[in-house]
Amino acid sequence: MNRPLLQLALDHSTLQAAQKDVALLCDHVDIVEAGTILCLNEGLHAVRALRQQCPDKIIVADWKVADAGETLAQQAFGAGANWMTIICAAPLATVEKGHAVAQAQGAEIQMELFGNWTFDDARAWRSIGVRQAIYHRGRDAQASGQQWGEADLARMKTLSDIGLELSITGGITPADLPLFKEINVKAFIAGRALAGAADPVQVARDFHEQINAIWGGQ
Amino acid sequence: MNRPLLQLALDHSTLQAAQKDVALLCDHVDIVEAGTILCLNEGLHAVRALRQQCPDKIIVADWKVADAGETLAQQAFGAGANWMTIICAAPLATVEKGHAVAQAQGAEIQMELFGNWTFDDARAWRSIGVRQAIYHRGRDAQASGQQWGEADLARMKTLSDIGLELSITGGITPADLPLFKEINVKAFIAGRALAGAADPVQVARDFHEQINAIWGGQ
Repeated sequence: MNRPLLQLALDHSTLQAAQKDVALLCDHVDIVEAGTILCLNEGLHAVRALRQQCPDKIIVADWKVADAGETLAQQAFGAGANWMTIICAAPLATVEKGHAVAQAQGAEIQMELFGNWTFDDARAWRSIGVRQAIYHRGRDAQASGQQWGEADLARMKTLSDIGLELSITGGITPADLPLFKEINVKAFIAGRALAGAADPVQVARDFHEQINAIWGGQ
Repeated sequence: MNRPLLQLALDHSTLQAAQKDVALLCDHVDIVEAGTILCLNEGLHAVRALRQQCPDKIIVADWKVADAGETLAQQAFGAGANWMTIICAAPLATVEKGHAVAQAQGAEIQMELFGNWTFDDARAWRSIGVRQAIYHRGRDAQASGQQWGEADLARMKTLSDIGLELSITGGITPADLPLFKEINVKAFIAGRALAGAADPVQVARDFHEQINAIWGGQ
């Protein structure tokens, strides 16, 4: 298994606030995510600005696309994103169209898992070439008390076995990482746990230390 | 059953192009929708601009929210939207939070039906107070040849019986309307079928004529 990456999720409502955190953390993470809230507030300009601010990082457009996969993939990747999220509820045709654009541009689609997705869906995504999915406790689910549990871990393991690399999110802290040692983790995604910390750079270092301790440093 | 409304979906990539169609059609529709593509390109400014351009119309923020229901509902309704869409795959906690904000502001949530939703989901949404859902053939599903069929109509009828008013979308033309006469239709949503027509105002008139013929004029 590859060593998991660290992703900074920007769930700010203004680009200005997001870019302030990026300035602080850009050198300490592998991936910078233009979050849904940021994108709905600031539009495509947010993706462009992050690409400019972080020329060497992987940029994610967390758009949770449900339809119009081709148009939106062209726009996200055209603005400089490397990865774009598609919601699991999207029709397979949407995933296919988004993936085709991604493939042509050396970019990737990430399937965002919420609600009633099935392992058959996961196999269908994999069979058309999609390699990534995002597994989370949603912000609202988390606030209402839902914890990481055995059921989550078993589902993640099955997704790994299907061949999907998983990015994992939902209030993750460095102390949680050993939970995921059997999973094919692409990235750990942290938003407020990272940017909202008293010492964000130290928390990023803690994440990397834990990742290296569990998956091996390089 | 109430007489269905006519909704103009703006799937433009620029606000300027969208507002040109709105100027032409605003007086001939009941609802103006800031589509997902428009919102992801232009940000919250698009919703504000449409509210300003159409002070007397219902404005929809078609955000297909999957998480952060409270924050996004506050932002959408704060910018002038009357209705905001939530994707069916969202956790119930997200729907509850979005609906609570909507209710406090005299606004409404619309559940957007894609993929593996269930009638139990629909009953859960209704039981927390949500009154609307959107049923569609997605743009990509439509392009790949999926037609309106008996299965669609039966599902819409069940959703009506559960107590949800439905907005229906996906390449609908005035000639399709008699298909839906047994359904509790809140609105027919048309994008390119309306704005992309040779004579958009005439197509809007044709929609209203058909609606009046089937559901009765007022």
